[in-house]
Amino acid sequence: MEPRFSARLTDLQASPIRQILAAANRPDMISFAGGLPAGESFPSFALKVPTAILQYGPTEGDDALRECLCEDLARLGLAVSTDQIIILSGSQQGIDLVAKLFIDAGTRVALESPTYLAALQVFRFFGARLAPFTPADAGNGDLFRERPAFAYVIPTFHNPTGYCYSDAERKALARVCDREAIPVFEDDPYRDLAYDPCDRRPLCAYLRESPWIYQGSFSKTLAPGLRLGFLAASPALVPHLVRLKQAADLHSNRLSQWLVLNALKRPDREVRLAALVEAYRRKRDAFDGALHEHFSGFARWEKPQGGLFFWLHLDVPIDTRLLLDSALADGVAFMPGEPFYADHTRHATGVLRLAFSHASEAEANKGLKILSERVRRFVDGARL
Amino acid sequence: MEPRFSARLTDLQASPIRQILAAANRPDMISFAGGLPAGESFPSFALKVPTAILQYGPTEGDDALRECLCEDLARLGLAVSTDQIIILSGSQQGIDLVAKLFIDAGTRVALESPTYLAALQVFRFFGARLAPFTPADAGNGDLFRERPAFAYVIPTFHNPTGYCYSDAERKALARVCDREAIPVFEDDPYRDLAYDPCDRRPLCAYLRESPWIYQGSFSKTLAPGLRLGFLAASPALVPHLVRLKQAADLHSNRLSQWLVLNALKRPDREVRLAALVEAYRRKRDAFDGALHEHFSGFARWEKPQGGLFFWLHLDVPIDTRLLLDSALADGVAFMPGEPFYADHTRHATGVLRLAFSHASEAEANKGLKILSERVRRFVDGARL
Repeated sequence: MEPRFSARLTDLQASPIRQILAAANRPDMISFAGGLPAGESFPSFALKVPTAILQYGPTEGDDALRECLCEDLARLGLAVSTDQIIILSGSQQGIDLVAKLFIDAGTRVALESPTYLAALQVFRFFGARLAPFTPADAGNGDLFRERPAFAYVIPTFHNPTGYCYSDAERKALARVCDREAIPVFEDDPYRDLAYDPCDRRPLCAYLRESPWIYQGSFSKTLAPGLRLGFLAASPALVPHLVRLKQAADLHSNRLSQWLVLNALKRPDREVRLAALVEAYRRKRDAFDGALHEHFSGFARWEKPQGGLFFWLHLDVPIDTRLLLDSALADGVAFMPGEPFYADHTRHATGVLRLAFSHASEAEANKGLKILSERVRRFVDGARL
Repeated sequence: MEPRFSARLTDLQASPIRQILAAANRPDMISFAGGLPAGESFPSFALKVPTAILQYGPTEGDDALRECLCEDLARLGLAVSTDQIIILSGSQQGIDLVAKLFIDAGTRVALESPTYLAALQVFRFFGARLAPFTPADAGNGDLFRERPAFAYVIPTFHNPTGYCYSDAERKALARVCDREAIPVFEDDPYRDLAYDPCDRRPLCAYLRESPWIYQGSFSKTLAPGLRLGFLAASPALVPHLVRLKQAADLHSNRLSQWLVLNALKRPDREVRLAALVEAYRRKRDAFDGALHEHFSGFARWEKPQGGLFFWLHLDVPIDTRLLLDSALADGVAFMPGEPFYADHTRHATGVLRLAFSHASEAEANKGLKILSERVRRFVDGARL
């Protein structure tokens, strides 16, 4: 099944650079092709990293890292080959590439609402019309009546809501996408931060027909400053995505690729991850306790099973963007709920996204106390 | 003067994330805003780098590096403030961002032809119609008759031709762009690799009215694998470019930014650069000698004053893409000339781009000998 690509994509021809560089990598080859600096010219950075990684590298990413990610994905239940993996300069880049792949002015994109606001921003930038749905809609026969070019989903520890799809919901949505031939773009940056037992098999693993892109990140479990993520995609999409990646930034940072590979190969990887999860679980529980202390009676929330966020619904639907100004003046920052909605003209949701990951427990308690006082004053003022 | 941006750009609204993160950086602020992992969670990479740089950073890039680049640009004759600088994930990204800034389907882009083929690829992808010009055209009154959205230029050690604009040519082109209100996008990755005295002041430094973007790279003098470049732009363009950068990949790799800053601050920086330039000058001269040995009488070329490439014109205008196949079979790679031309349906230019930077002198001589034999056989075959 050939998905509908953007008109723009057909203009992005196969580049001669890539095929020449591939040939030029043969050890017997004398290459005058790429403008590669002399390897012996690289400075020593006083790091114990192989000098070879300071040279230009493959657009798809370094093979050893891609192989390692294949094994990870197989353990998650998503069977792919190394060829299907592209290393990204952070998973934000995957959103840019997929938008370029599919979106022309007026193209429909199906997505949850609320959803990750920087994805909404990119899809809108490329001219998408947004068609919101909820996991509960998956049983609904006319879910994709408007023929979206793809569906963007965050099934595991959703940003901003923290929701985690059940296995049944994953299967149901995959079934509809298969039946309606809707490509799936699954964004999965939080999957390793699971504090309670829950279903985390990628939705893409349940697809049998539809093209798909699955992406992950190293920002949440290793370090955001390295700007490294990856995607895996169904085979027909990969060559297009590689060309788009090449046009965007040639390839991802190789020092980061090398550092991440080494972190993934460390024998204490699982032990370290378990300690990280335990530390975040404690922060989540303390945050939940502080919410009960300061917000009981005028807000509701679910304790998230994973990820980094509480999604706090105030009983009074004030415009949280206005609340933000006064909270900042009091030294407390949060994300207003409104920009996470597909209908960005929507006002006054009364929802706040609160990250529990960064502040210490004592700071969190203090900040939530200030915030609850500020909310009460704001609501009282709004009622006058 | 307000340049004509793409229709797409008006949809890219100011993101609440950036202003909140800016406020959240105040030391007295308790932030629940961004999904920042806990700083204490970052692994040790056994590098002596500050742990702080493993966290998310500013979209514009780290201040210390931006300040250092300001000083560099001032020495080059381009006076800018730190606010005007954005760190890029390699200068290829600058091409993507500028294309997003200006190009709608059908938008005219003025550029030299031949020019950097990956820029052509990106401009075409966004739907540009390409309007070629040459530096000699600058005196010509109707140079920009077709009202391009911007002019893309590589005045210093042009890729692929190696040409370096004289000061008079820089001034003349800047004057026309000012008069016709054409924004300038100047790509300057090779400026530090100068083997002979020549004019290298940025063309943008001569502009008085037109908006401009100037970009540079660390790939040629430090290491391409770090994927780091930068742009400077006239003040009215900066906020738009920052938003586009954020939507593309949030920000550039901070480890690379830190390493590049350290390399730029080293007391032996100028000594090291001089040694690099001397090594490349020797390679260029040896390559020129080998070209005389193997290509005299059936090709012509200029010895480039800087950069990494010879641009070799064969006397017989064969299709060098066809020559490539047989050269690769003989173990020699080069870049065919055809894809560097704005008219990409153009065939049979008889021009080859030969990078002299990578092969050793002995390899280069051997490769050029093989290539010249292959060319002679190919031309004889074409004449039959």
